[in-house]
Parts: sequence; structure tokens; C-alpha cells
Amino acid sequence: MVHPDMATMLCFLTTDAPAHPSWLQETLAATADVSLNMIDVDMDTSTSDTMLLFANGAAGGEPLDAGHPAAPAFREALVALSTELAKDLVRDAEGARALIEVRVDGAHSTEDARRAARTVASSPLVKTMVTGRDANLGRVMMALGRSGAQVDVERTSIWIGKSCAFERGAPTTVPYEVLSGEMVGEDVSIRVDLGLGSSSATAWGCDLTEEYIRINADYTT
Amino acid sequence: MVHPDMATMLCFLTTDAPAHPSWLQETLAATADVSLNMIDVDMDTSTSDTMLLFANGAAGGEPLDAGHPAAPAFREALVALSTELAKDLVRDAEGARALIEVRVDGAHSTEDARRAARTVASSPLVKTMVTGRDANLGRVMMALGRSGAQVDVERTSIWIGKSCAFERGAPTTVPYEVLSGEMVGEDVSIRVDLGLGSSSATAWGCDLTEEYIRINADYTT
Repeated sequence: MVHPDMATMLCFLTTDAPAHPSWLQETLAATADVSLNMIDVDMDTSTSDTMLLFANGAAGGEPLDAGHPAAPAFREALVALSTELAKDLVRDAEGARALIEVRVDGAHSTEDARRAARTVASSPLVKTMVTGRDANLGRVMMALGRSGAQVDVERTSIWIGKSCAFERGAPTTVPYEVLSGEMVGEDVSIRVDLGLGSSSATAWGCDLTEEYIRINADYTT
Repeated sequence: MVHPDMATMLCFLTTDAPAHPSWLQETLAATADVSLNMIDVDMDTSTSDTMLLFANGAAGGEPLDAGHPAAPAFREALVALSTELAKDLVRDAEGARALIEVRVDGAHSTEDARRAARTVASSPLVKTMVTGRDANLGRVMMALGRSGAQVDVERTSIWIGKSCAFERGAPTTVPYEVLSGEMVGEDVSIRVDLGLGSSSATAWGCDLTEEYIRINADYTT
């Protein structure tokens, strides 16, 4: 699914459900915004990223639209499927050894939450922090700061895995070794509470390894 | 000058020239915009980037301001010095083996030219293209396309070093080996003519090597 040169991403989904095309298009766009549009490998967008959903109506019955009783369940399933595909795509990235999930809560707006989560997930210094299993919180704070989201250090808390590393402006007493130990597996979780509002977003990225360089530097047209 | 963790950049300049503080501040800001603000190592901004200019007036004479006959020469010297410092800073980046100079001409606006130049200079895929000495123009076009600048492929031309690789929408007949040969030295030049206007900008970046990963993954707080 990931072409090793341009991260070209083509995503085709099919369903037997009947549906009104305009509702389906709207639902698909909203789904892309919380799944495939929230992943990053190297910030370089593909020239042909595409997500298509085909509904052939084979299942019969009333076509889905906003008022259909099955609409919420369909939407939920679509988001779940797209999120899994998005995460698989990141796991499959050039040289990636770890999937980094960045969840931001307490943002002032959804836009802020998305920006903060994506910036942390795509920061080369956060990525190499995970590569080296080195819990350097300054890098997460730096990425939050440059994201453009409203951030107040005194209200910000950060978790790595299940360990709270930074609480409302100050490092916690959790030892460095424990925090670094939270980054040993293939799935690394970073959670941020900005303490400013009630908006959330999740983004996914991967670590940046020497293998990424080898693959992308050795590729020949 | 570059701290290997956060690309912390502190730049102190001194001059014996007397000068009006407000003119000097304005001139320094304009200088930063075409020198230090146009470099990139890894897109991660430092928490303490600083550029300061001290003028002690020891040289005597009329203080410099916009109307002073020596103002253009002073400004030119300041830009030249700051540009050299900016390039040295990139050359000194973690793991960098090549300085990449990206000049964009023919942009619709200065803002467009700056965006296009900075996006090409900071693209991981352009950086690894230089690491591998692999003239893959698709990566330059991709970066131009995602920069947000107005781009029309049919009017775009691209040079690598002195060789024109792409002319108004089509690859030239210059062989791949010749283009890749233009990327062998320590200074690699990419020039783009967008063919849409008369604005220009230059940005500087460096290649992305396995050494960058080693330095940033092995760093411990």
C-alpha cells in the first residue's frame, strides 16, 4: 500500500450497503479526516493519495442517509476500518519499527488538537526519540510549541505509555528509565492534555530509522 | 553554533558603526528573513533561536538610518555576513554531508517564492535524494506542489547544478548520470523557475543521512 518512493496511498473500500451518494461522500470525507488524514511518514505528501468507497447496494433495503437508523453504526464501522488501515500503512512505512500514536486532549479547538497531534507525530526529533527509546520530553514540548496550537506550559501534561512524565508544567518523579521503557514495544503511545478546552484528536506516525535513509537514498528512478 | 539536540541557534553580531536603533532593528529583521530564517535542518524549531546585533558606535560619524548614504552598503554587508553564517550553520548540522541551496525564481509573490524554496529545501525526500546522489525530479515537483505556492507544471523549469533537468513541463534530454553527477560535491544547487511572476527567494538545507539518525537517536537527556 505504501510505495517506497512517494508514499503513494491508494485506498479502496467496498460495501454491499445501499446509500445516498451525497451522504456517503460526506461520511467518507469525515472519516478520512480522522484516519488517513491523520497519519504521517515523512511529511512528504504523495502525488496521488486517493480514498474511494464503492457501495453497490447488494444488501438491499433503504439507502443509508443521515436519518437512517443504521447510519451511526455504519459510520462507526467505517471509521474503525479506516483507522486500522491508516495504522497498517504507517507500520508498513520505509524503515519503521514502531507505530507512534499521539493523542491530544484538552485542546482549545478541534483544529488545535489536530495540529498539535500531527506536529508531534511528524517531528523528526520526536521520531528519533522513539528510535533511540530516549524519553526526551523537551522534544514533545518543542513540537507542541511550534504546532501553532494554543499551548500553556503550566497547564500541559504528557504521558508516555501509562506513565505520566510531565504534569501541569513540571516533570514528574517517574524515572527516565521507566519512561524510556514505555517506548520499547512496536506500539508507542504519547498522550498530551493541553488543559485548555475539550477538543481531542489522534495522529499516527512512525519512528525514523537509518533504514528510512537507506531505502530513500538508494532508490533509483 | 548548532546544539546537536534542538538545533538551538544563537547568533551574535557586533559592529562599530553608529546607527539609529529602530532602523537597525528593522534592517536586522529583514536580514534574518533572507538568511537565518531561510535555513532548515529538520523542520524542528529551537526553543531559543536568537539573533542579536550590537552597535557600539565606536566608528563615530552620523548614525545610520534609511537616508544615510552608507545604509545600502551596510545592509548588503549584513546580509552577506548573515547568509554565510546561515550556510555554515547548515553545513554544521547533525550528519550533514552536503549543503543544498534552493533558489526559486519566477514566483507569483515573494511569499510564494519563500514557501516553495523552504519546502523543497526541507523535504525529507529531496534531502535523501541528495544523500543518494539520485536525480529524482518527481521529489522536487512533489515538494513544490505541497508548498502551497502557485505552481503550473507547464511553466515550471528545474536545474540541478548547471544542468537543466526539466523545462516547462517536460524532462530534458540531459542524462540521469549527468544530473546525479551535479549532486556529488559538498554544495548542491537546485534552481526552480516557476514562470509565473518576478519574485525570487533562496533557502538552504542539508542532506539527511544515517548519521543524523544515530546522533538524534543516541542522545540522552
